[in-house]
Amino acid sequence: MAETPTAAVLIIGNEILSGRTQDANLAHIARVLGTRGIRVKEARVVEDEVAAIAEAVNDLRARYTYVFTTGGIGPTHDDVTALGVAHAFGRPLVRDPEAERRLLAYYPPEKRTAARMKMADVPQGAALIDNPVSAAPGFQVDNVFVLPGVPSILKAMLDLLLPRLEGGPPLISRTIVAYVPEGEIAEQLAAVQARHPAVTIGSYPFMRIGTPGTSLVFRAADPDLVARAVADFLEVARAAQINVDEEVLA
Amino acid sequence: MAETPTAAVLIIGNEILSGRTQDANLAHIARVLGTRGIRVKEARVVEDEVAAIAEAVNDLRARYTYVFTTGGIGPTHDDVTALGVAHAFGRPLVRDPEAERRLLAYYPPEKRTAARMKMADVPQGAALIDNPVSAAPGFQVDNVFVLPGVPSILKAMLDLLLPRLEGGPPLISRTIVAYVPEGEIAEQLAAVQARHPAVTIGSYPFMRIGTPGTSLVFRAADPDLVARAVADFLEVARAAQINVDEEVLA
Repeated sequence: MAETPTAAVLIIGNEILSGRTQDANLAHIARVLGTRGIRVKEARVVEDEVAAIAEAVNDLRARYTYVFTTGGIGPTHDDVTALGVAHAFGRPLVRDPEAERRLLAYYPPEKRTAARMKMADVPQGAALIDNPVSAAPGFQVDNVFVLPGVPSILKAMLDLLLPRLEGGPPLISRTIVAYVPEGEIAEQLAAVQARHPAVTIGSYPFMRIGTPGTSLVFRAADPDLVARAVADFLEVARAAQINVDEEVLA
Repeated sequence: MAETPTAAVLIIGNEILSGRTQDANLAHIARVLGTRGIRVKEARVVEDEVAAIAEAVNDLRARYTYVFTTGGIGPTHDDVTALGVAHAFGRPLVRDPEAERRLLAYYPPEKRTAARMKMADVPQGAALIDNPVSAAPGFQVDNVFVLPGVPSILKAMLDLLLPRLEGGPPLISRTIVAYVPEGEIAEQLAAVQARHPAVTIGSYPFMRIGTPGTSLVFRAADPDLVARAVADFLEVARAAQINVDEEVLA
């Protein structure tokens, strides 16, 4: 089976680090990439600072198949992501003629401020990523994909971008709910994990109407391996008289 | 004015990177630390893997005044944060007698599984962080604070922990809402930012009932500097006939 491609998400924005804004993009990107068999292995959040962005981009693009950045590509002084990515690659920022054309087509003459036209500046050699919502494109340099922070626009652009990515076998995930506190099933679970090393088993405690339980997430690229690990666990649970349910996600 | 202490947040958990769970702790930690004058400069999310945790801890603790980790300190096989932090510091994991005492007091004899008692294992020399909710403590090693991922427990523990931290002058933040798209105010705003380099001005576009606007967040430790930058901007907005409001956060 082919190796699973990996990804990192780099979230850029002071507003996330100050607690003013709750990031909503990481979970979305992770789920969408998961359907393509791409596994998000790391995420970082950095401030709107050129040096911090450049350093994180260089660190992450060397480690993972893909890097997706979010935020910092608007028209204001604190939008410095394009410059940060340009620094990372040691390239100049240049005005992209096609991006400029799209912005000119989108904004009527009296709305074409210099600040807005700056959104056509990309690192030299970048490929544009279409923006079906508000014209200003994202861009790709090598394995780095630069996307906006506004969730609705990011979602639309990510959908358009997906066919460009080489995926892997999609990760299969099954969730079993065990009606027992995780501390009382942990030893059996560790034994199941040890017998199925190719399946990642995550254990997430919950409390529902005052009753503690544990959601167990079995994940692997190979559905047979997932099925075997789940069956093994169900056997263990039956022997221990633990009630279980399979959670079917809507 | 004393230098502002800095912090990084390290979020540990496959469930965040798979998109199964939406992190809610970063924004809370950032806001609480902000009230103590501690600025969160970076956040990372890594998987439940000892090597990834150890590497991130070592990278972050060298860069920032404080590091706060969340997640991975429960009783199951995928809870490997304590081991990751121990590796980062090159120390063994040892059973902490006080943590053990608390767990023994909390769990009746038939509930004292080996997996639960493992929650008393901390890197040698760690100081415990009290857990007023569910007994299992967090711990501190040097400038690294290890906290749980369950938001309600994390909040309670962070409150107890705050007095241990040396804060700085609290960051003052004022938000001005300008009823204009950010692309049409960006140039004036860049000029205001240039005249007030010690104040961080963030620009966040929004759409309310179909009308675009921009929230401008002025942030600095010195309230006078914030007031001057805000006054300068209000003057600019008045001259440009832009309607503004001050947003008072509840």
